[in-house]
Amino acid sequence: MLYTEIPSQRPVTPLLDAIDHPQQLRQLEQSQLPQVADELRQFILYAAGQSGGHFGANLGVIELTVALHYCFNTPEDRLVWDVGHQAYPHKALTGRREQLRTIRAKNGLAAFPAREESVFDTFGVGHSSTAISAGLGMALASRYQKSPREVVAIVGDGAMTAGMAFEAMNDAVAHNADMMVVLNDNDMSISQSTGGFAKHLASIWEQGQFVNIDAQGQAFVQDCPEWDYTSRLHESATDAADNLFKAIGFDYFGPFDGHDVEQLAQVFNALKKRKGPRLIHIYTVKGKGFAPAEADQIKYHAISKLNATSSKNPAPKYSDVFGQWLCDEAAQDDKLLAITPAMCEGSGMVKFAQQFPERYFDVAIAEQHAVTLAAGMACEGLKPVVAIYSTFLQRGYDQLIHDVALQNLDVTFAIDRAGLVGEDGPTHAGAYDYAFMRTVPNMVIMAPKDENECRQMLHTAYLHQGPTAVRYPRGNGLGVEIQQQLTALEIGKAEIVAEFNLEHDECISILAFGSRVSVAVEAAKQLASKLDLAVRVVNMRFVKPLDEQIIRDLADKTSLFVTVEEHAVMAGAGSAVNEFIAQAQILKPMLNLGLPDEFLPQASHAEMLQDCGLDAKGIQNSIEHAWTKLVQHI
Amino acid sequence: MLYTEIPSQRPVTPLLDAIDHPQQLRQLEQSQLPQVADELRQFILYAAGQSGGHFGANLGVIELTVALHYCFNTPEDRLVWDVGHQAYPHKALTGRREQLRTIRAKNGLAAFPAREESVFDTFGVGHSSTAISAGLGMALASRYQKSPREVVAIVGDGAMTAGMAFEAMNDAVAHNADMMVVLNDNDMSISQSTGGFAKHLASIWEQGQFVNIDAQGQAFVQDCPEWDYTSRLHESATDAADNLFKAIGFDYFGPFDGHDVEQLAQVFNALKKRKGPRLIHIYTVKGKGFAPAEADQIKYHAISKLNATSSKNPAPKYSDVFGQWLCDEAAQDDKLLAITPAMCEGSGMVKFAQQFPERYFDVAIAEQHAVTLAAGMACEGLKPVVAIYSTFLQRGYDQLIHDVALQNLDVTFAIDRAGLVGEDGPTHAGAYDYAFMRTVPNMVIMAPKDENECRQMLHTAYLHQGPTAVRYPRGNGLGVEIQQQLTALEIGKAEIVAEFNLEHDECISILAFGSRVSVAVEAAKQLASKLDLAVRVVNMRFVKPLDEQIIRDLADKTSLFVTVEEHAVMAGAGSAVNEFIAQAQILKPMLNLGLPDEFLPQASHAEMLQDCGLDAKGIQNSIEHAWTKLVQHI
Repeated sequence: MLYTEIPSQRPVTPLLDAIDHPQQLRQLEQSQLPQVADELRQFILYAAGQSGGHFGANLGVIELTVALHYCFNTPEDRLVWDVGHQAYPHKALTGRREQLRTIRAKNGLAAFPAREESVFDTFGVGHSSTAISAGLGMALASRYQKSPREVVAIVGDGAMTAGMAFEAMNDAVAHNADMMVVLNDNDMSISQSTGGFAKHLASIWEQGQFVNIDAQGQAFVQDCPEWDYTSRLHESATDAADNLFKAIGFDYFGPFDGHDVEQLAQVFNALKKRKGPRLIHIYTVKGKGFAPAEADQIKYHAISKLNATSSKNPAPKYSDVFGQWLCDEAAQDDKLLAITPAMCEGSGMVKFAQQFPERYFDVAIAEQHAVTLAAGMACEGLKPVVAIYSTFLQRGYDQLIHDVALQNLDVTFAIDRAGLVGEDGPTHAGAYDYAFMRTVPNMVIMAPKDENECRQMLHTAYLHQGPTAVRYPRGNGLGVEIQQQLTALEIGKAEIVAEFNLEHDECISILAFGSRVSVAVEAAKQLASKLDLAVRVVNMRFVKPLDEQIIRDLADKTSLFVTVEEHAVMAGAGSAVNEFIAQAQILKPMLNLGLPDEFLPQASHAEMLQDCGLDAKGIQNSIEHAWTKLVQHI
Repeated sequence: MLYTEIPSQRPVTPLLDAIDHPQQLRQLEQSQLPQVADELRQFILYAAGQSGGHFGANLGVIELTVALHYCFNTPEDRLVWDVGHQAYPHKALTGRREQLRTIRAKNGLAAFPAREESVFDTFGVGHSSTAISAGLGMALASRYQKSPREVVAIVGDGAMTAGMAFEAMNDAVAHNADMMVVLNDNDMSISQSTGGFAKHLASIWEQGQFVNIDAQGQAFVQDCPEWDYTSRLHESATDAADNLFKAIGFDYFGPFDGHDVEQLAQVFNALKKRKGPRLIHIYTVKGKGFAPAEADQIKYHAISKLNATSSKNPAPKYSDVFGQWLCDEAAQDDKLLAITPAMCEGSGMVKFAQQFPERYFDVAIAEQHAVTLAAGMACEGLKPVVAIYSTFLQRGYDQLIHDVALQNLDVTFAIDRAGLVGEDGPTHAGAYDYAFMRTVPNMVIMAPKDENECRQMLHTAYLHQGPTAVRYPRGNGLGVEIQQQLTALEIGKAEIVAEFNLEHDECISILAFGSRVSVAVEAAKQLASKLDLAVRVVNMRFVKPLDEQIIRDLADKTSLFVTVEEHAVMAGAGSAVNEFIAQAQILKPMLNLGLPDEFLPQASHAEMLQDCGLDAKGIQNSIEHAWTKLVQHI
């Protein structure tokens, strides 16, 4: 069935309602699976409308999910979902159907598979391309433990471009591991898939034949099924005789229609008896069964709740501020090139890609390569900008050190989604970037207090010769005026943004970083109204190099220093301040506020900040508490 | 010529001596190239005997290097050497012949290509698998700049298993980039190559035919050359019709005999005219031309100086202490599995691999995969140990966070080569691991004061449920007795290892980490003889969790805290102490000693430590200086 609307009422799903454990699914006849799939699709449409969240990928794997749980003895057999934003049908079939409407909300289901949530979630995911490695670990463990369990890793074609997937396939062959990889080929990552691998997949389709298996599990070559694949063909196919998966040593089967649930069941039942590393290539349509999503797969990657109250925040997103700056800077300087690892839309680069196609490089999900590609470009005197989420920069960390910073190359990192990220939860938190970057020589690291400063800092970073990073949060700015004029900030120079009760000599000095500057000002105002001492708030701007002079200048009047940041306290920006005051032998009490030393479950961004005491009230309370303790000491 | 001895006298090399710039090489007749290659081989044998250092890989690329500089207009055309330990012939042909004897020494040539050393070194390397990304960056820059320059990335088969190389090839095809990749296939990384990719390369050889080019640059298929490749065949070849490079979209040429310098020159001259991404597959022998190295390629990966005065240090290497512990722990617990990313010998795992082959996993150069493979194994209740160099763990950082720590999985990281690494220089320094690990929740991080504590810490880490890391330095232990009995340390518990001048109340407390404990004791002894106050040295043992109690207990008597570590001061272990004393409102002067905020050029490990003031004398001086300053303040 092709649906055209997201239902606001719970659909009638009698077969699905009877499945609280996949064992109940496995008791159905194979001929009933299409109905299960149809009910599941209706239910997912409904539930996603209630919760918001990932969408297209989930609709694409309805039949696959049904067939997998039908054929494999889950949870004893291990299904390892790559990325995991396509796990809603899996969650619905494994006892979490009625909770699905709570997905991504505080105390609700996690956005991705999570081991602590269900025994069916064999591996926590969120970042792409980990499933073959994890599944191989399980398969080798099974062999070592002489367990008969099966392991199936389900990986999208987009995730296959990340080198980690290749590393794992190489190793699976080395061990002749008994595992199955389902390549869920929908010709998309979140954006359009790109590169030689995508072309290669297309070439396999172009061959017009595929490897099937008969009832005895024997492989044979037959003509392609009659369903229409030709509309999906790419233009530049490689030699049809080649097959990358066979080349690397996998047994290859497919391509199969990923929406024919009965055929999928036959395939899995036949192939699960085989040994060695097997790749089953299926073709699916992102957004399958929902007409608007099939038509616009990028838009329907994720959706908002039905009737969601829009936040009415008129301020632009930081991503869009970045995207606009990128266009403006590129218009002024033809040395600017921009790189994204498959996050064109998320990083706000759609306009740039249209305006400057020859200067825009989407390298696919390939963070390691993205960073070193930039290094190579910088060697030729160009000025690459790498747009990357904080959490994904972790994938390119060695390249940042070894290829960029060590050679002091002129690369600008625009680090989005830094700090907490709300509903996506701990896998996507950008809570460690100050720590892992500031320990690296030659780095300059900035964090803006608002969207205008973000724009000016990007300009500052771009002009600075050497590796620089500007890290900014997910979501909207504060609504301040954005100056079109690009004005470079002085490197390593902070600014005092608020001063209260200046009639007192004694002072609390709050050194705030990035997103916490504006809330620190609010907190300071409240504190000033309650305490008989001056309160100053400094927008530190630079995590590295620190403005040491402003700290020295404040030291004499300061009775309590406070640092506050949306980053782990451990090794963070406050820690950099601690190092400086130690070195300068400034003996003053110090309170470091930031994220606690734990992985935080998903909630809204605001809820998470509140829970961490990093909203204005929380900052105020922490400072009052520290101050009280301090006064008692004296 | 096949040589059997490393000459102690400079060989006679008239053609080579006349080449101070490759332009002079390019003026020779093609028929003279074999003599150039022979002279260069003799010279490299001699020079490596004088300097020590990488060896086998350099002998393997003599003809390749001559042919490349002969055919390409270097430095305007860009040669990008992957890894770079094979760049001695390249350095010899590019004006650095007479300096080659100083390679790896302080103020000598760098061990690897280095941009600041020569315009011919287009990209600094050391870690593997970066060259295609960097070369692609240069090639895309050339296109954008409308420059006619050629880009050639030279990559070993071992480095091809790292996913980053695959990411870059995928992207090169996406851009139809005009670049050449030379696959230098010697069937080895530093250890034996492993995995599906190695088997695939073997299958290409087995075909018995190869793609050649004629004088017009047209490709044609011909039978394999007559030289003996059959001795190199692997057993399990994949379908010979497949070719991974063609599958991904590269034009593929080869395999060619990598020791036929004239044929190589013909090939490069023909293929450099072509457009698009091209892969030239050549076969070389590691150690070529030196009989002992051809016979034992692993042993001759690197050599010591001729007549090197052996250090007579009877203490075992930390790597060997790890290897022995691994065998002992495995004998006691059959849940232990061990993983190495292609560093069997370097990590001390040869014995384990022999004793426990079914529990030993060499995953090839694939650090990302190595970490997540361990995570998958841990999900099944096994207890994997990942042996990895500090600098290479940077490659698996996201996997450490997202796949191991976030799920609090029971994985032990045995982190070798932590701190400075001497002759290998800044690319291999392990100077950032405390910082990038301690910011991650759930991590337990230890550093041993000596080889016995290393053994006991590995045991402690292994027993602890959750992600743990033991980081230990390159080189030999202190010569202490190693207790065979494995005794777990208490997590988060430090020990006072030395106390001087206890008749004084006032105290300097030195909180020392890992390799700096023993030198801190020496420094303390000297300080105690000069200052009228007590000096205590604490072996902190744990970077995370810190022993907060011992710091509290010492605080009252302490007039100056000192932290000392072989790690960057920024965000390091001392920084963790700073965070705690801030949080505890302990107002005491603090001196953080560690590595400076710069990349340090190569020298001996001892020289580097001395230059950083991290030997006993340096530590003593720094403390005296800080103390003097402090006393003046008071």
